Amino acid sequence: MAHARMLAKVKLLTARELRAIVSGLRAIEREIGEKRFKFVLADEDIHLAIERRLTAMIGAAGQKLHTARSRNDQVALDLRLYLRDEIAAMLTLVEGLTRILVEVASAHTATAMPGYTHLQRAQPVTLAHHLLAYVEMLSRDRERLAQTAVRTDVMPLGAGALAGTTLPIDRQRVAHELGFSRITENSIDAVSDRDFALDFLSAGSIMAIHLSRMAEEIILWTTAEFGFAELPDEFSTGSSMMPQKKNPDLLELMRGKTGRVVGALVAMLTILKGLPLAYNSDLQEDKERIFDVVDTLKPMLTLLAEFWPRLTFRTEVMATSAGSFALATDLAEYLVARGVPFREAHEIVGALVRDCVARERKLDELTLPDLRNYSPKFEADALLRLTVPSSLKMRSLPGGPAPHQVEQRLRQLRKTRGRHDRA
Amino acid sequence: MAHARMLAKVKLLTARELRAIVSGLRAIEREIGEKRFKFVLADEDIHLAIERRLTAMIGAAGQKLHTARSRNDQVALDLRLYLRDEIAAMLTLVEGLTRILVEVASAHTATAMPGYTHLQRAQPVTLAHHLLAYVEMLSRDRERLAQTAVRTDVMPLGAGALAGTTLPIDRQRVAHELGFSRITENSIDAVSDRDFALDFLSAGSIMAIHLSRMAEEIILWTTAEFGFAELPDEFSTGSSMMPQKKNPDLLELMRGKTGRVVGALVAMLTILKGLPLAYNSDLQEDKERIFDVVDTLKPMLTLLAEFWPRLTFRTEVMATSAGSFALATDLAEYLVARGVPFREAHEIVGALVRDCVARERKLDELTLPDLRNYSPKFEADALLRLTVPSSLKMRSLPGGPAPHQVEQRLRQLRKTRGRHDRA
Amino acid sequence: MAHARMLAKVKLLTARELRAIVSGLRAIEREIGEKRFKFVLADEDIHLAIERRLTAMIGAAGQKLHTARSRNDQVALDLRLYLRDEIAAMLTLVEGLTRILVEVASAHTATAMPGYTHLQRAQPVTLAHHLLAYVEMLSRDRERLAQTAVRTDVMPLGAGALAGTTLPIDRQRVAHELGFSRITENSIDAVSDRDFALDFLSAGSIMAIHLSRMAEEIILWTTAEFGFAELPDEFSTGSSMMPQKKNPDLLELMRGKTGRVVGALVAMLTILKGLPLAYNSDLQEDKERIFDVVDTLKPMLTLLAEFWPRLTFRTEVMATSAGSFALATDLAEYLVARGVPFREAHEIVGALVRDCVARERKLDELTLPDLRNYSPKFEADALLRLTVPSSLKMRSLPGGPAPHQVEQRLRQLRKTRGRHDRA
Amino acid sequence: MAHARMLAKVKLLTARELRAIVSGLRAIEREIGEKRFKFVLADEDIHLAIERRLTAMIGAAGQKLHTARSRNDQVALDLRLYLRDEIAAMLTLVEGLTRILVEVASAHTATAMPGYTHLQRAQPVTLAHHLLAYVEMLSRDRERLAQTAVRTDVMPLGAGALAGTTLPIDRQRVAHELGFSRITENSIDAVSDRDFALDFLSAGSIMAIHLSRMAEEIILWTTAEFGFAELPDEFSTGSSMMPQKKNPDLLELMRGKTGRVVGALVAMLTILKGLPLAYNSDLQEDKERIFDVVDTLKPMLTLLAEFWPRLTFRTEVMATSAGSFALATDLAEYLVARGVPFREAHEIVGALVRDCVARERKLDELTLPDLRNYSPKFEADALLRLTVPSSLKMRSLPGGPAPHQVEQRLRQLRKTRGRHDRA
Repeated sequence: MAHARMLAKVKLLTARELRAIVSGLRAIEREIGEKRFKFVLADEDIHLAIERRLTAMIGAAGQKLHTARSRNDQVALDLRLYLRDEIAAMLTLVEGLTRILVEVASAHTATAMPGYTHLQRAQPVTLAHHLLAYVEMLSRDRERLAQTAVRTDVMPLGAGALAGTTLPIDRQRVAHELGFSRITENSIDAVSDRDFALDFLSAGSIMAIHLSRMAEEIILWTTAEFGFAELPDEFSTGSSMMPQKKNPDLLELMRGKTGRVVGALVAMLTILKGLPLAYNSDLQEDKERIFDVVDTLKPMLTLLAEFWPRLTFRTEVMATSAGSFALATDLAEYLVARGVPFREAHEIVGALVRDCVARERKLDELTLPDLRNYSPKFEADALLRLTVPSSLKMRSLPGGPAPHQVEQRLRQLRKTRGRHDRA
Repeated sequence: MAHARMLAKVKLLTARELRAIVSGLRAIEREIGEKRFKFVLADEDIHLAIERRLTAMIGAAGQKLHTARSRNDQVALDLRLYLRDEIAAMLTLVEGLTRILVEVASAHTATAMPGYTHLQRAQPVTLAHHLLAYVEMLSRDRERLAQTAVRTDVMPLGAGALAGTTLPIDRQRVAHELGFSRITENSIDAVSDRDFALDFLSAGSIMAIHLSRMAEEIILWTTAEFGFAELPDEFSTGSSMMPQKKNPDLLELMRGKTGRVVGALVAMLTILKGLPLAYNSDLQEDKERIFDVVDTLKPMLTLLAEFWPRLTFRTEVMATSAGSFALATDLAEYLVARGVPFREAHEIVGALVRDCVARERKLDELTLPDLRNYSPKFEADALLRLTVPSSLKMRSLPGGPAPHQVEQRLRQLRKTRGRHDRA
Repeated sequence: MAHARMLAKVKLLTARELRAIVSGLRAIEREIGEKRFKFVLADEDIHLAIERRLTAMIGAAGQKLHTARSRNDQVALDLRLYLRDEIAAMLTLVEGLTRILVEVASAHTATAMPGYTHLQRAQPVTLAHHLLAYVEMLSRDRERLAQTAVRTDVMPLGAGALAGTTLPIDRQRVAHELGFSRITENSIDAVSDRDFALDFLSAGSIMAIHLSRMAEEIILWTTAEFGFAELPDEFSTGSSMMPQKKNPDLLELMRGKTGRVVGALVAMLTILKGLPLAYNSDLQEDKERIFDVVDTLKPMLTLLAEFWPRLTFRTEVMATSAGSFALATDLAEYLVARGVPFREAHEIVGALVRDCVARERKLDELTLPDLRNYSPKFEADALLRLTVPSSLKMRSLPGGPAPHQVEQRLRQLRKTRGRHDRA
Repeated sequence: MAHARMLAKVKLLTARELRAIVSGLRAIEREIGEKRFKFVLADEDIHLAIERRLTAMIGAAGQKLHTARSRNDQVALDLRLYLRDEIAAMLTLVEGLTRILVEVASAHTATAMPGYTHLQRAQPVTLAHHLLAYVEMLSRDRERLAQTAVRTDVMPLGAGALAGTTLPIDRQRVAHELGFSRITENSIDAVSDRDFALDFLSAGSIMAIHLSRMAEEIILWTTAEFGFAELPDEFSTGSSMMPQKKNPDLLELMRGKTGRVVGALVAMLTILKGLPLAYNSDLQEDKERIFDVVDTLKPMLTLLAEFWPRLTFRTEVMATSAGSFALATDLAEYLVARGVPFREAHEIVGALVRDCVARERKLDELTLPDLRNYSPKFEADALLRLTVPSSLKMRSLPGGPAPHQVEQRLRQLRKTRGRHDRA
C-alpha cells in the first residue's frame, strides 16, 4: 500500500487505480488473516500470489502494483520489516528478563555464596552479585540488538533488480510511510547486502552463549551435589523410569539450543562467502535461519523471566560453602595492608592453609596465637576477617560484591531500566 | 606502571618502592625491546616472568607489584588493551581502503559495465556504482568495529580473581591513566566476559565475507572469459608449468582466509558455550584466535588498498557487455511510463526480446517500426532509450547508478571521510 | 512390536497380552497412516502418545509395553532406524547421480575444454575428464555414507535410562528382528552417544561442499561470458523485470544450501561439546538437524541427476577456449623430452609466449622457423604438438585426460556400479 | 628422490643426473636437519627453495627435478604424506589412552558410583562401566581415523598442474616407493580434492568433542561439591591469590581446545565451499589448519594417558551417592517382574518415594511392612533389592553395568587391543 500510494503521488497510478489497489490489498489481508487465501505453487512466492489475487479482484490496475519494483528489493524490504519488529520485541524481552534478575537480586544482596574460578570455590560473593553478572551480559545483548536494529532500519525499495529504475519514484516517501529512518545509498548493495542478517545472527549467538552459561550454572546448582537451589515443578520433568528425579529439561534444552543458533550464524556466513554481486538466489536461504533464531530466542527469554522468581534457593547451603578456605585471600590481603609484600603474604597464608588441611581444621577455627605462629603482623582484628560477612563487606570497591556496592548498582539499574521503559 | 602508581597513591607502596618498580619496569621494557629478556618455562606467563625479573632487579618491592591484582583481571586487561589498539589500527586501514575505492570510483562514474543478478547480465550500471557497493559494506564494517571498540574500552583491573579485593584501591585512577572510558561494573563478569572478543571476531568475519565477495569478483573479472580487468604483475604470479598465465593468488588467498576468520569465530563461540562463571582456563584459547584474525585482516586491507589503483580496467569490454538485452527493462519501463500496466509491458518486451534472440538481432539494431509491431505506445524517443548512456542517465533516483547521482554520493563520502580523518 | 515379541519370549508378557499389543499397534499404525491419530500436547512425545492410545484401546496390557525400556534408549533407537533407512536411500541417489555423470561423460570423451587453475585457462582437458572429477568426489561420498551406515547399524535398546535393566530381556533378539548387525556394548554410551549423527552430518557437509563446487561451475559455464552451456528451461527461471534472462536459481539454491548443512554440523558439535554423561535433554536438538539435512540433500541429488542430461553443452565454444596458450606446457614438455632441463625449457617457452602475446599471435599460428628462433631442439613434430587433440592424446598416463584413458576409466566405473547395483 | 628415481627409470634423467640429484637431496636433508639451510623469501615455497639449492650444488641436473611435476600435485602429495604419518601416530596414541582406561577400569569393576541423566543421580553404575563408555567413544575415533588414513593413502603425483603430463612417467612406481596403496584416478580431482583434510578435521572434531566431555566430567568430579576424585598435583595448578585451590587447568584447556579443532573444520569447509575446479590458491590455507589440529590433539591424548592413572578416586563418596533413591527403579522392576504393568509399578514406587522424601527417610531404611503398604506384591526378597551391589549385579544384560558383564567386556577389549598392537 505504501508503494502504491507513492506510485499514485508520482502519477504512475491514477487515484482510481490506487483506491482499487488499496481496497484490494485490504481484502487480501483479511483473507490471509482468516486463512481463506489460496496459495498455489505456480505463484512462486508471496509477492506474485498477492499480485495475482489482486488482479483477479480488481483487473488491470493489479498488474501495475509491481511497477518500479523487483522481487530483489522487495524481499530485502520484507526481511528488514520483519526483523525490525522482531528485534523490538526481543529488546522488550531482554529488558523484562533483566528486570526480573534485578528483582531477584534485590532480595539477595546479603546472601553469601562461593564465587568460583575453575569451578573450584575461590572467594565469597553474594547471590545478588552473581546474578548481576548476567545482567551485565544482558545489557551488552541489549546494546548489540539495538545497534543491529539501527542497521536494519534502512529502506531498500527502489533498488529494483539491482540498478534502480528509470521511473520517477520517490523513495523517501515510501521510507517515511513505512517508518524507516534512512534509505539505502547504493542499489547494488541494497539487493546483495545481508549484513543486517549477520548482525542479528551474531547478536543472537552471543546472547545464546550467555543463556547457555546461565543454564549450565542452574543445572549445576540444582544437582544433588551442589544443592544450591531447587527447581520449580512447573519447570522440571520427572523421569519415565525414576520417579524421584526432577530433571532440568528446560535448561538443558536452552543450553542445547545454543548450537542451533550458532549453526544458523555459520550457515549464513557460509552462504555469503565468495558470492559475487548483486542478487543471487543463494540469499533465499536467509529467511529460515532468521525465523528460526527469532523463534528460538524469544521463548527462551520469556521462559527464563518466568523461571527465575520460581527457583528456590537453599541459602544456608550456599552460605556454608562460602566460608573457610575461601577466606584465605582475605588473610593474605590483611598482611599486605600491613606492609608484607604480596608474594611473601601469599606464601605465609599458603603454609597456614596447608597445615589446616593436614590437621582437618577450618580457617575460622584458628586463634590469634595460631595465626601469629605464621606472622607477627597478625593482630586481633585478623580474626574478624575470618567471617564471610566481613569479607564481603570489605570487598567494597566499585564493581565488587560488598552488599552496599551491589545495592548501589541495583539502584542504578532500576533507574536505567526506567529510562528504557519510557523510550 | 599505572597499577604501581595507583598503589602508591593509596599508600600500598611507598614512594621509594614506586620509583624502584617504575625504573625496573622501564629497564625490562628495554630488555624485551632489545630481545635480551630471558623467558623461562617456569614463569608460566608474561606477568610472572616480569615480576620475577623485577624482583631480581629491585628486591622485595618487586614482590609488591601483584598487590590487589590477579592474573584473571590482568589477562582481561591485556587483551582489551591489545584489541583497543588493533581496532584503532584496523579502522584506519578500513578508511584507507574506502578512500582508495572512492578515488578509483571517481575516475569511473561514466564507465558502463553490466550489472549482474544470478551472475547473468541484467542491467547496465557503472564501475563507480559497483565500487561504491563495496564502500557501503566497508562503512558498515567501520561502524561495527567502532562499536566493538566502545565495548572493549572498559577497564577490568580490580576485579581480582573474581571478587575484587579488600584493599583500598582506586580503579578509576588506573582506568584514567590507561586511557579507558569506563570501568567494569561487576567483578564476576569482568573476569568471565569475552564478549568483546566475540564482537571483534563477528565484526571481523563479516568484514572477511565482504572481502571474499570482492576477491571473487576480481577473480571473475580477470578471467579470459570476462576480460574486464588485468591483474598488475606485482599482484599476480605465474605458473611453474604454464608461462602464459597470470594467477590471482593474492585474491584467492584472501577468499580462502575468510574460512580462517570464520573458523576463529566458531572456535570462540564453542569455547564459551555452557561455561560456568567466573574464570575458567578455557578462556586462554581466546588470544591466538584474536591475534590470528588481526594478523589476517590487517594485511588484507593494506594490500587491497595497494591493489585497486593498480588494476587495469578494460572499459571497452565492460561497455560492450553492458548493452543490448540488458536494456530490455528500459523498454518495459518506457511503456509503463506511458500507462501500460507493468505485467503487460513485461510481456510485450519479453516477446520482442525472444524474437530478437531467434533472429540474432541486437536490441539496439531495432527501428521504430520494429518496436511498433509490438506496441503502438512506442514513439521515436523509445529508440533513444536503447543506448547504455541514456539508460544510465535515467537511473537517477537516490542510490541509483546515474553518473550525477554517483558523483553526488562520492562528494558526500569524501566529506564524511574528512570527518573521520579529523576525529 | 519387536520389543513386545521379545518381552513375550522372556515371559514379561503373556501370549494374549502380546497379541493385544501387536494388533493395537497395527491399528495405531493405520490411524497414523490415515492421519486419524490424535496427538495431544500432554503426551510429550510419540512414545507416550502411542502408549496412551494403546492403553485406551486394549487396557492394562498397553501399560506393559514400556517394560524394560526408557525414552533414552528408545529415542536413540528411533534415530538410528530413521538414519539407517535414509542413508540407504541416499546411497541409491548418489549412485544414480554417478551413473548419470558417467553417461553424460561417455558422450564427451573427445570434447575438448580448457582445464582451469586459479580460474585461468591452463591446459586442455575433456568434458568427460572434468565430469569424472565429480564422480571421484561422489565415490568418496558413497564410501563415507556407507561407513556411517555401519556405525549407525547398532541396536541401543536395553540400555534403559543409562544403566540397563534388572529384567531378563534379550537384546540380540530385538536387534535381529529389527535387522541390526550389532548391539551397543555399553549402556551409558548407548544413550549419550550421537557420533552417528555427527558422522552423518560430516558426510553430508562434505557432500554438500562437492555439490556447491559443481553448482558454482555450472553457474560459471552458463554465464554469457563463459558460454560453455545453456540451462534447460525447466531448470532455470526468468526475471520478473528482465525477460531476456535465464537464471540458474536451482544451482544457486544448491550452492546456498551448503551453508544450511554445514550449519547443522556446527550446531550438533556445539550441542555435544562439554556435555557430561549420560543422557541430557540437549540431545533433543539432534533430530531437526538430521531431518533437515536429509530433506536438503536428497532433492539435490535427485534434481542434479535430472539436470545433467538436460544441460546443453556448447562444445565449439569450449574447444576454442581450450587451445593456443593452453598448449604452452606441451611445448615445454617437448623440449624436456629432448633433454632440455625443465627450468630451461620453461624459460624458453615463457619467452616465446610473451612474444606471441606482444605480437597478438596465437601459438598454433607459429611455424617451425619461428620455434627454432627459441631453441634448436624444436623439430617438425613440434608443430604437431600445437593442437588440442594431440595434446589430449598424449596426456595418457593413468588418471590423465587422454580419451582412451578416460574411456578405460568409464568402463571400470560402469563395472563397479554394476556391483553396487547388485549389492 | 622417489620422483627422481622414477624419472631415471623412464629415461628422463641419466644415471649420472640421478646420482647427483639423490646425493644433493641427501646433503640438503642434512642441512635442514642441522638447521643450516637458508630459506629466502624469493623461493616462494619449500619446493623451489630445495630446487634452487640443489641447482646451486649440482648444476643443470637440479633444474630437471621438477620435470613432469607441478606444485599443485606436489603439495597434495606433501600433505598426504604428512597426514598419513600423523594419523598413524595418533592411532597409536588413541590405543594407548584406551589401554590406560581399560587398566584403570579393571581396578574398579565393583566401585559403585551414581549414573547420571540430566546431571541428576539416576541409577547405580560402576566406575569401570562409566570409563568403558569413553572406551567406546575412542574405539569409534580409532575406526574413523583408520578410514581417513585409507582415503589419505592415495598418491597424487603425476596429476601435474591439473591435466597430467605428456611425458612417459610411471606413477605406480612412485606410489610403490613412497608406500602408497593406490594412485589418484583423475588428475583434476587429484589437485582440487581436500576431502582427506575434511575427513581428518571431522574425525578430529568428533574426537575433541569426546575429550571435552571427558574433561567436563573430571572437572565436575574434582569439585568440592562432587568430591569424587582428587587431581594429581602435577596436573593441577594453584592460584596466584588462593593458596588452597587445586585448579584443573589442563582439563579446562582441553575442553577449550575443542573450539579450536571445530573452528579448523569450519574454516576448511568454508574455504572449499563453492570453489571451482581445479587448483585454487585458497587451498593453501589447508596446511595450518591440519598442523594445528595434529599439534592440539596429540598432546591431549598423551597427557590424558598420563593423567588417568594419577587421578585419585574417592570411592566411598561415590558409593554413598549411588544409593537410596537411585534404587527406585529396581523396586519398580521388582513389581514388573511380578506381573504389575510397568506404568502401574512406576506409580506405586513414585508414591513411595514421595512419602520417603516427605518423611526424610532413605529407601534402604524401609521395612517389608512399609513396602507392603504400597503393594501386596512386595515380598521379603524386595528388601534385598535395596542395596547398590545387588542392583548392580542384577543389571547383567549385555552392555550393562553388572561387574561380571563389565569384566567380560574388559577381557574382550584386552584381546582386541592385542590384535591392534600386533597389526
